[in-house]
Amino acid sequence: MNIKIFLSFGFILISTTVLAQEKRGRARDFGIFTGILKTGSNNAITDVNGVSVGHTTLIKGDSVRTGVTAIVPHAGNLFQEKVPAAIYVGNGFGKSMGLSQIKELGNLETPILLTNTLNAPLVANALLDYMLALPGNENVRSVNAMVGETNDGGLNDIRGRHVKAEDVINALKNAKSGNVEEGNVGAGTGTEALGFKGGIGTSSRVLPKSKGGYTVGVLVQSNFGGVLQINGAPVGRELNNFYLMDKNKPYKADGSCMIIIATDAPLSDRNLERLAKRSYIAFGNVGAFSSNGSGDYAIAFSTYAKNRIFHQAKSATRNIDDLNNDEMSPLFMAVWEATEEALLNSLFMAQDLKGINGREVKALPIKKTLEILKKYKALEQNKLPMALEY
Amino acid sequence: MNIKIFLSFGFILISTTVLAQEKRGRARDFGIFTGILKTGSNNAITDVNGVSVGHTTLIKGDSVRTGVTAIVPHAGNLFQEKVPAAIYVGNGFGKSMGLSQIKELGNLETPILLTNTLNAPLVANALLDYMLALPGNENVRSVNAMVGETNDGGLNDIRGRHVKAEDVINALKNAKSGNVEEGNVGAGTGTEALGFKGGIGTSSRVLPKSKGGYTVGVLVQSNFGGVLQINGAPVGRELNNFYLMDKNKPYKADGSCMIIIATDAPLSDRNLERLAKRSYIAFGNVGAFSSNGSGDYAIAFSTYAKNRIFHQAKSATRNIDDLNNDEMSPLFMAVWEATEEALLNSLFMAQDLKGINGREVKALPIKKTLEILKKYKALEQNKLPMALEY
Amino acid sequence: MNIKIFLSFGFILISTTVLAQEKRGRARDFGIFTGILKTGSNNAITDVNGVSVGHTTLIKGDSVRTGVTAIVPHAGNLFQEKVPAAIYVGNGFGKSMGLSQIKELGNLETPILLTNTLNAPLVANALLDYMLALPGNENVRSVNAMVGETNDGGLNDIRGRHVKAEDVINALKNAKSGNVEEGNVGAGTGTEALGFKGGIGTSSRVLPKSKGGYTVGVLVQSNFGGVLQINGAPVGRELNNFYLMDKNKPYKADGSCMIIIATDAPLSDRNLERLAKRSYIAFGNVGAFSSNGSGDYAIAFSTYAKNRIFHQAKSATRNIDDLNNDEMSPLFMAVWEATEEALLNSLFMAQDLKGINGREVKALPIKKTLEILKKYKALEQNKLPMALEY
Amino acid sequence: MNIKIFLSFGFILISTTVLAQEKRGRARDFGIFTGILKTGSNNAITDVNGVSVGHTTLIKGDSVRTGVTAIVPHAGNLFQEKVPAAIYVGNGFGKSMGLSQIKELGNLETPILLTNTLNAPLVANALLDYMLALPGNENVRSVNAMVGETNDGGLNDIRGRHVKAEDVINALKNAKSGNVEEGNVGAGTGTEALGFKGGIGTSSRVLPKSKGGYTVGVLVQSNFGGVLQINGAPVGRELNNFYLMDKNKPYKADGSCMIIIATDAPLSDRNLERLAKRSYIAFGNVGAFSSNGSGDYAIAFSTYAKNRIFHQAKSATRNIDDLNNDEMSPLFMAVWEATEEALLNSLFMAQDLKGINGREVKALPIKKTLEILKKYKALEQNKLPMALEY
Repeated sequence: MNIKIFLSFGFILISTTVLAQEKRGRARDFGIFTGILKTGSNNAITDVNGVSVGHTTLIKGDSVRTGVTAIVPHAGNLFQEKVPAAIYVGNGFGKSMGLSQIKELGNLETPILLTNTLNAPLVANALLDYMLALPGNENVRSVNAMVGETNDGGLNDIRGRHVKAEDVINALKNAKSGNVEEGNVGAGTGTEALGFKGGIGTSSRVLPKSKGGYTVGVLVQSNFGGVLQINGAPVGRELNNFYLMDKNKPYKADGSCMIIIATDAPLSDRNLERLAKRSYIAFGNVGAFSSNGSGDYAIAFSTYAKNRIFHQAKSATRNIDDLNNDEMSPLFMAVWEATEEALLNSLFMAQDLKGINGREVKALPIKKTLEILKKYKALEQNKLPMALEY
Repeated sequence: MNIKIFLSFGFILISTTVLAQEKRGRARDFGIFTGILKTGSNNAITDVNGVSVGHTTLIKGDSVRTGVTAIVPHAGNLFQEKVPAAIYVGNGFGKSMGLSQIKELGNLETPILLTNTLNAPLVANALLDYMLALPGNENVRSVNAMVGETNDGGLNDIRGRHVKAEDVINALKNAKSGNVEEGNVGAGTGTEALGFKGGIGTSSRVLPKSKGGYTVGVLVQSNFGGVLQINGAPVGRELNNFYLMDKNKPYKADGSCMIIIATDAPLSDRNLERLAKRSYIAFGNVGAFSSNGSGDYAIAFSTYAKNRIFHQAKSATRNIDDLNNDEMSPLFMAVWEATEEALLNSLFMAQDLKGINGREVKALPIKKTLEILKKYKALEQNKLPMALEY
Repeated sequence: MNIKIFLSFGFILISTTVLAQEKRGRARDFGIFTGILKTGSNNAITDVNGVSVGHTTLIKGDSVRTGVTAIVPHAGNLFQEKVPAAIYVGNGFGKSMGLSQIKELGNLETPILLTNTLNAPLVANALLDYMLALPGNENVRSVNAMVGETNDGGLNDIRGRHVKAEDVINALKNAKSGNVEEGNVGAGTGTEALGFKGGIGTSSRVLPKSKGGYTVGVLVQSNFGGVLQINGAPVGRELNNFYLMDKNKPYKADGSCMIIIATDAPLSDRNLERLAKRSYIAFGNVGAFSSNGSGDYAIAFSTYAKNRIFHQAKSATRNIDDLNNDEMSPLFMAVWEATEEALLNSLFMAQDLKGINGREVKALPIKKTLEILKKYKALEQNKLPMALEY
Repeated sequence: MNIKIFLSFGFILISTTVLAQEKRGRARDFGIFTGILKTGSNNAITDVNGVSVGHTTLIKGDSVRTGVTAIVPHAGNLFQEKVPAAIYVGNGFGKSMGLSQIKELGNLETPILLTNTLNAPLVANALLDYMLALPGNENVRSVNAMVGETNDGGLNDIRGRHVKAEDVINALKNAKSGNVEEGNVGAGTGTEALGFKGGIGTSSRVLPKSKGGYTVGVLVQSNFGGVLQINGAPVGRELNNFYLMDKNKPYKADGSCMIIIATDAPLSDRNLERLAKRSYIAFGNVGAFSSNGSGDYAIAFSTYAKNRIFHQAKSATRNIDDLNNDEMSPLFMAVWEATEEALLNSLFMAQDLKGINGREVKALPIKKTLEILKKYKALEQNKLPMALEY
């Protein structure tokens, strides 16, 4: 409850600074339909049953512009009931923690936390506090804390490491299903993407029944550069705001992207890794190419109940369901589409933000962008043929 | 010379079958400009100095529709003067050979050959013939033959393994710099991509002087499915020809893609691997998502003369130049752009082809496609801002 | 039958050249007990139910000293009923084929063939012949042939590529369960290891009932250098025959080792990869350190019937059993012990062999070796405590 | 200086509890010579010029038995002058941080810190404190902190996370060249290995001049199980203390091992990774098999001055020396030998320790062990042939 009040305060504070800002909305609210698959009911990672998301947004004074985002695979004690999981490292220039154990054991035993680069260790330590204190974990002496990060140092006093343990606990406690706040919230508070204000974005896809009817949800923390494209329209170039323009107008191509992927499909960790890998392809669709300095990590997990891994196993083997390799293609398409749309949502929902050293980063100008999209007929794709009957 | 006559014959044969076909051309010939970087003079992998390409195209009777493509990094004895090289496996559902040694040792010691799936071993054996017979290799008893493949079994009698040793030798001997034949040639003779006839395609990019002025060249053997996009225009959906449409109209999403990348930049094998990885992102730009059955492999090498690895080393260490990590981003952009355009070229240059069991695969309909591109303003991107001064 | 006659002939031929040779036997026959776990009944990879092994041994004239070894996971059509499988590349200086698809899809769809380096493509092609011709595979157009190799060029006319398609077919047809021939047979005919004649070796371990009672079987093709140790006794140094001795007495540290691992435990491909990795640790126990030129590959598969992957799947998911991560340690110990003993068996069973250019490689001198082992009390380890009750 | 007093106090405290303990010493002090290569002058990682090591040992009250060990590649600002580096993950069941960036960029930009599992995040955060405060790093906003860990929870109150920022700073400040303290010090204070008290151990090897004369140094934090062997003698079984004995006498096979490798050879990150991988083989030589729960990580770096990576590069390329692949085998042998001996040193130098819940772990009983080694002639290997002339 504390945090909610604080968050509200954050937004009041922001709304005063950004008085003249355009009304924000999600890409789809403006008629931008990407891909040929349907979304879930919230078009969010929380469309995967049981998944919840919580944010702590820290906007204080002139220079604190950061936060924490928690993605929680299920409501139980995740250490005691681990979920199958995998990692794909697109570009490993980053400080994410917990990767090697997930890769080795094929499972995730904590919620996933996102934050800023220099705060990752403190956030991991707070996650240990939280996990060790959970009922049933009294004798636990080893926890693999999964923490991802991107660098918000362009707007945030990152050297100050302002995210504290209580901020982490609050993000975890406030995690909820349903709608997910996007834009300048949580770990996306101070991030930048494709020349504009970035942040948190989410989206989902549901497969046709004949393809299993599975849901894939994606949440991104966007913080990278490139040449912005939206549904194929060359928005970055039209706005003359893209990487490699000229020496006198530096443009930040670096940064990073964290991509969290949830699905209810019964996937092995190997197929979760393959799923995670396809999110990388979506970079091309928004105009990113994973620059040298971009720490691009995807983490995928399955919530399929039967496949959970119990810390206190009742028998030596688990009996599980494993979706065939041959069934993966529609899921690959789903994660590709949802990642693209989550990235767009992060841009459309972000707002102008002024931060450290008085530097301001503008949000994507929606009105101008829609004009460009109209010019390129990028708003009419919902009239085109879709995937087969649902 | 033999082969040239044979090839001509092949084309005569084809031109009778395809009498009414549209005039083909490269994407750029039709006003399709992708990206913000300039191309090399031939817009081909051969723009990287020293690189040559040769094809053997096998079109015989009703059902032989296959071939070999050779990419030769330099004109010397490659076993004796190896080049730094790396591999990126996008999706490993494929039978490429030679990968693990390139990864372990960071170098390539044969030309790269492309062919069809079931012919890969015979082609590798013929490459051994060739390498063992080269002057200077009389005592060589171990050669790592690099052979890639995609499956052309939809048009070609692939079980017949019709590529023979002489076809391999001919492709190697005919390798030349300058223009590269594209479309239904060499290893692309019988391939299909994005719902249309695929094949060989190539493209290149040159960096601005201030970014090193390096060249990156790409050659692809396209043979995969998806939802075709061209410069953002949803061509596949407009033509109602894309993956996951309906049960009664099966569409092949599977297949594979080989991507060969050459550069004259002085890259370590680690940075060559990172370069290779970025070609995978270009899949998104043409509407591919690397389906389960797609064997997607990228192989990158550097021709930078000083960094060659001599089989008979004169000293225990090599003195080499190593481009800094921080300089990689423009090269990443270059390979991303060149891969996209090479994929498009493979479609635009391919021609209708009838093959095994009387099955015919149509080439991308150029006139209709250009109409769609016009509708989506996809032909005007050369008027948009480009990268900084060259 | 043909092959049997030929093999006998081969052995007659050899026995005339090696008239004065010591009687060979397996390590355990001489009192060398390694580790704390029990072996299976044949102390061979064939102790894993359903696994069979076949050899074609080629010893002709002065210089043909090579062959093929086939390891067959089950008696059915392996393409139609694939088995879970994984790869571990210890040192990738080798030309094994089929690796990337096994890694990507987690399964094996052909028998595993071993041969010499330059024959690998021809052997792979013959394996395609065999697979394509199997009843039920009439429409198969893509097969991932798994072929491993080491370089027997020190004794064999390797440039001649003397292994032909019929030799491959024979090895496959002659595959049988029960005892496995070791030493100078099949793909081990011309190999060398640790300064002596190497070859094929095999061994197995069975876990105590309380640990699942699973069997792990290993077969090696040994062809590498180092400083031979046997049960800790420094045999290589005692015999003054080891790597890095002096310039005037060159010693071949390079070479390679193929390690094939079978188990009936219900392991995921991830845990099969982890299992395969532990075989690498056994190198230390025999005095090998995986030199630069050594192509060291381990391939592990599970024969657990319920977990097979049907090419024509009856449903979208497989219901499988998956042994818990926490149960893996005894299996890791088993593969470590079995690999060590398989390597020793390859040395003890190999015989002196003269080959190309008149070069002769001596087998491990058993009498002298046993004296050394006695000195170091290396023959009394069966009196030491073993693992828990079976 | 503070820390030194504290450390002394710790040792006084310990020496009262362990009054009757045997005099400890390094393996070589007792006549145990492993391998065929010579050691450096200190037989320590610090034999690699410029490398220093510092410990903070925390022994407080009944239950604090932990610490920090710092390995510092050179005396300068490591962020500004990075060193080529690589990672090998033997078994990724661990919480090491900083791995993915080292892998991606091929370099190390902080000292390496070792600690206990649950303290890793706090130690990483303290390392950030230290790095950000270094002169010249005032504007640094991204640091890849390299922290490794093993789990000392059998003796230490690990849930208490008793390592604090000042302990980290002290370990870094106290780092020195020359002799390295071993056994129950620093991050090895509370660890256990092979059934006995483990800890920190170190060793080195120097190559013959004709092989480059390079030095390889290794430092380990040992904390794992198995079946102890020393120079081939089956010490674990002779002492009836090994993994998988019987249900009523549980033996901890799990745990972990951190292996830090330094060399002055001019190795690329690729060859550093290959070097790191060979340390894994040494597990076999001491009787470990990398159990499921063992987090086994090796980190290798090169101190070769010319190959350093300057954060503020003066030019786009570095001119570097790169040791040929073909020269790697002697270095592989060196790291294999040095790792084995470092592991033995960690056991021989460790002392009995009583910790949390009154649990006591005995050190390796030296007298009894030497008797066993005598029985197996394991103390006479210095009389055997060595490597070629130095």
